[in-house]
Parts: sequence; C-alpha cells; structure tokens
Amino acid sequence: MPEPSSPPDPFLAACRGKRGPYTPVWFMRQAGRALPEYRALRSSETILEAIRQPDLAAEITLQPVRRYGVDAAVLFSDIIVPVAAVGFGIDVHAGVGPVADRPFREAADLERLRPLEPPADLPWVAETVRILVKELAVPLIGFAGGPFTLASYLIEGRPSRDYVKTKSLMHADTGLWFALVDRLADLSTTSLRDQIEAGVGAVQVFDSWAGALSPADYERFVLPSARRIFDGIADLGVPRIHFGVGTGELLGHMAAAGAEVIGVDWRVPLQTAAARAPSALAVQGNLDPAICLAPWNAVAEATTEILRRRPDGVGHIFNLGHGVLPETDPGILARIVDLVHEYGGEPVTPPDAVSPPNAVTSRND
Amino acid sequence: MPEPSSPPDPFLAACRGKRGPYTPVWFMRQAGRALPEYRALRSSETILEAIRQPDLAAEITLQPVRRYGVDAAVLFSDIIVPVAAVGFGIDVHAGVGPVADRPFREAADLERLRPLEPPADLPWVAETVRILVKELAVPLIGFAGGPFTLASYLIEGRPSRDYVKTKSLMHADTGLWFALVDRLADLSTTSLRDQIEAGVGAVQVFDSWAGALSPADYERFVLPSARRIFDGIADLGVPRIHFGVGTGELLGHMAAAGAEVIGVDWRVPLQTAAARAPSALAVQGNLDPAICLAPWNAVAEATTEILRRRPDGVGHIFNLGHGVLPETDPGILARIVDLVHEYGGEPVTPPDAVSPPNAVTSRND
Repeated sequence: MPEPSSPPDPFLAACRGKRGPYTPVWFMRQAGRALPEYRALRSSETILEAIRQPDLAAEITLQPVRRYGVDAAVLFSDIIVPVAAVGFGIDVHAGVGPVADRPFREAADLERLRPLEPPADLPWVAETVRILVKELAVPLIGFAGGPFTLASYLIEGRPSRDYVKTKSLMHADTGLWFALVDRLADLSTTSLRDQIEAGVGAVQVFDSWAGALSPADYERFVLPSARRIFDGIADLGVPRIHFGVGTGELLGHMAAAGAEVIGVDWRVPLQTAAARAPSALAVQGNLDPAICLAPWNAVAEATTEILRRRPDGVGHIFNLGHGVLPETDPGILARIVDLVHEYGGEPVTPPDAVSPPNAVTSRND
Repeated sequence: MPEPSSPPDPFLAACRGKRGPYTPVWFMRQAGRALPEYRALRSSETILEAIRQPDLAAEITLQPVRRYGVDAAVLFSDIIVPVAAVGFGIDVHAGVGPVADRPFREAADLERLRPLEPPADLPWVAETVRILVKELAVPLIGFAGGPFTLASYLIEGRPSRDYVKTKSLMHADTGLWFALVDRLADLSTTSLRDQIEAGVGAVQVFDSWAGALSPADYERFVLPSARRIFDGIADLGVPRIHFGVGTGELLGHMAAAGAEVIGVDWRVPLQTAAARAPSALAVQGNLDPAICLAPWNAVAEATTEILRRRPDGVGHIFNLGHGVLPETDPGILARIVDLVHEYGGEPVTPPDAVSPPNAVTSRND
C-alpha cells in the first residue's frame, strides 16, 4: 500500500473516479502477437501451456510494460483457463481461439464443470502473480470471462459469428442455461479471488461477446450471473472493470452488475457511455484498434479527440476499444502512451509530485 | 396506383409514418437459402448468374411472398451487382460472400469503376422488376449497397472481421477514399434509379457494416456519400430505408442522410432508435434472427414484445434485425407474419375495410 504521503497510483485512482495529473493508459491484449519479443519467446507450446509456466507468463506480461510504459500490466492468461483447469476439455487453437473437444449440449455436460479449487487446480496463476507484483511498479490487472462469452465458447464449441446455438439453448432450456452460467460465474469468481489474493490490484471481467444480445435478453439471461461474479469479489475491495464489444445498449446493465469501471468500445463516445452507465465511477477506452494501423497523424488526432471529449465527473482510463490487433506496429502504441501522458489531466496533487512511472523498477527499490 | 377510395398499402403507408389496421412485415433475405423451394430451383450457376436470369430471379423473389404472406417483396439481387456490371472483377462465392479478383489499392483501381449505364450494363434488373410488378399484389423493394459496405468488399477483397485495410485506406489516403466512395455512391444511385423507374415501390440502402465505425468516422468518411445516394433519388418520390447492423450510435446520421425509414438491428429497442433518429418517419425491425431458431413460444414472446414496445408517433415495419439465417425453419417465419398481422394496430380505416393481402394475386385481377 502507498504511504499516506505518496501520490495515488494514477490507474487505481482513475478506477475510483479520480482525475490525476495525467490519464493512465493500458491496452487490452498489450501482451502478445504484436510484439516481436513475444514472438521470439513463444516456441511450439500452446497458449495454455505458456500460461502454465510462471516465469514465461510473467516475462510475457512484463514485455509491454517495458516497451510501452503503460500504467498497468495485465496478466498473460486466457478467459478459458478456469474452465480448462476443471477438465471441461477445451484449448486455445492458434489463429482460431477457444475450441471445445465436445461442446456443451445437455445437463450431463454440467458434470464437466465442477467447482474450481485453487491453488491445486491452477497453482501457476498465483505463482505468476506473485512474481509480477515483485517486479512491477504499476498495478497488475487480473481477469476472467463473463457468463455469455464463456457460455458461447462452450456451447458453440468455437468462436461464432451469430451465436445461434447459444441463443437457442438460452431460449429453449432456460433452466439449463441458468445452471450453466451460474457455474461459469462461480468459476470466474473463484479464479478472480485467487488472483486478487495473490496480489492483482484490479480485475476486468471480459464479457466480450455479450453485445450480441438485445438489452432485454442480456438483462434476463446474463445480468444475474454477471452480478454473481461482481458480488462474489466485492469484499476484496479491488476495482472491478466490466467490458464487452458492441455493448452500447448494455452499458447501464453492465455497470449495475457491480463494476466501478465500464469498458467502452470505439462505437460509443465516452460521454454517451458515462451517461448510460451512471453507476460507474470511471470509463475505460476507447480508440478503435484498427486506427492504430493508420498513419500516425490519424492515430494522434483520434487519440486527442478521445481525451478532449471525455466526460466530466468520472475517472478515465485510456485504452483501445478492443484488443491490440496482431499486425499493429508496437512503435505506434508507444507513441500513443506518450501522447496520452503528455496531454495531462486535472491535477489532484501538484503536477511535479507525480510523473509517468518508470514502469519496471521494483516497488522495493 | 391505388384508386382514391382504395385503402393505402400498409407497407408504403408505414414508410410514410402512418399506422394502419395491422403492422406490415417483411424479412431481410426472405428469398434464399432458408427456403426448400429456393434450394430446389438453384442449380450450379453462381448467385450473380441466377440474378441475371429475369424469370428465375422473379420466381425466387416471389417464393417467400407466397409462402409467408409478407407485405413486401424484395428483389432477388446483390449489393455488388452494379460494381460487377461495370467490370470491377468481383463475384459472390457460395458460403463466403463477395470476393474481388484484385482488391482496390490505389488510384489506378478507380478505372475499374466507370459509371453504370442502364439498361445496357444490367438489362436483367429492369426486366426482373417489370415481371414482378405484374405478378405482385404487394410493393416490391429494390436495394443497393451503402458506401462503407461496398468499399470494404472492394478494399478487403472479401468479407472482413476488423476492416483494417478499409479503415487504413480511409485514414491514410483520404482523397482516394472519397473518390472511391463517391463513385460507389454514384453506382448505387444509378442502380436505384433504374430499379425505381422499372417499378419498385420503395428502396433500401444496405450499409450493413457501417456499424464498424465510430460515429465521428462515420460522419466524416461515409455520411457525405450516403447523402449523395439519398439526394440522388429524392426526386423519384419512393420511400427510402437505410439499414446497417450494430449502428446504434449512427442512427441519427443514417436517418439524416435522407431516409424516411431507419432500419434497426435487435440491439437497440425501437423506442430508443426512434429517439436517436428524430428525422425518420418510421422504424423497421427488429427481431434477433437467431431467436427464430428457438422454440415458438420464445419467438412469439420476443415478437410480441417488439410490437408492444414500438414507439408512438412513427410508422413501424416489422422485420428481423438482420437477414434470415439459412438454418431458419420457414414455418416459424410464416407464424411470425401471422402473429404480427393478428396483433393489429391503430386503425386508420375501419378494420373490416382492409385485411392482410392475398399476396400473390395480380394487381390486374
């Protein structure tokens, strides 16, 4: 914990609705394929195998913090880790995404979703977190999957365009649907508690594909289990972020599930997002990741426009509106971080008391 | 034209903001793969080859009108027809979508987009329309592609997930982008004028993927050429519908482009859509097409909910929020039509004066 006289951490302060001398910034999927040092480190093991090696997973987590000077690290992991750890039978296929051996079809498939028991089921997660909190001078963000997104991977058996099987099961066998998403919510909750107890300073729930639902269907079929996750970690006191793409009409519900921070994709101006999610203390986003492949002047203009038009009265964490695209030039992301930091903010402490952190010096230095 | 004493056509009246004794309904992609009679009729020719045969294209257009009793037919065609007709080098691949021989990359590629000259370039379109207007007792809807969607197919060379090349060109070479979308707008305009002059009673501009853009990018990079299309057919006096998926934040712009009717996907409640697009006279939508694969009671509940919560003061045309999914049971769509018709509306003429049309009796009967 910072001493009473030390300045507040910019990322954590923003999560609590505070504006500091500059806007904190990180990028979803900042660790990974866009970085040559990541591609150099990854060999023939699968993503889940890499995640299970704490030294490797920690190094991959640190790479973007070093290169970009972002204000938060995000654990190198995957939302299907808990489901895989209890033996559902699912893996991440390179270039595809999660693929289930046998998709979820009937009540008997619930037996493949027993409760998660940390640390035994996934000792590497807490170990990776412990390595990282010693190394990092910025907060580490842990994460888990949201109910709809996890359910969609299990039911469709792979990434989907229309979520037809998922929506069919939801409407055709509502009892089984709720049994499934409650189990998935419990898996995510237990995983998040494990990460928080090991030292992550904030968490994000990725219900990435929840935007495929109408607001009425989200409210009825997903919100209760989303709330279950947020309620299930409320006592641990870390900021909670809730994010999905294409969720413009769901932002109010997603914040009301219990999140301090609502993640916003590039389709919704941040002022609009804040108005739709009055319970949120902060908004996170929202540069279109595809714009990062445009010439720098276009990137700079779009970045500045987001900063210029952010809402008053709430915190703001700069991010992309979705994950870093693999073909992104890392140099562009580094320049975005510099631009966001240089843009400044509303001082809550004298500006000379805080400067953008030298991100990878140890907290114990 | 109807005689002064005949009741107004329910679909056309709704496009003008009027409520009649029942809500008119049609389905995007109502003609096509969901229908066994369509699969029986289609042989080894490509989709573009089928479109070029007026008798065949007319029969495919009529099939869903006969089977479902919908209140409008929609021409069996494709948004790339004009681009293909001027020799850009693009075809529709079964199970994939539009695929360009050589994607659009540079100014020299504009030469492959000369102006469309009907009827010589596509005599089959007007011929198909003429056959249909003789056969149909309901209005025929013509259509064309919106600027972003057409540009994305040309630039990406095929359907895309992220539209990275499209957005990169847009930001990197703004002059070339505007030259491209203006040409595409002119192709769509000329095609729509050809269809209207041959007899279609309404038109829809499908900018299906425009929702991939932020509102700021849509307004700057797409709205001017969208307006060019709507302005370019305004003098012909038929109702104009503007539609895309995931366009919740763009509805105001898309209506302001000049549309009487704004098409709405299932993510945005119709009351919200109407409030965001105050210039629209009517809203069209918005049942999630994936729900059509759920049990009937879920379909009926979702359909009724849309009717119950439609906005006051504007017309409503019931539709799906996107195209019919190929795996949809046609029997479900027929039941939706019946349910929508039976739900009723606000009478503008005595209810016994108008009943849902016997759709395929000739107007000349």
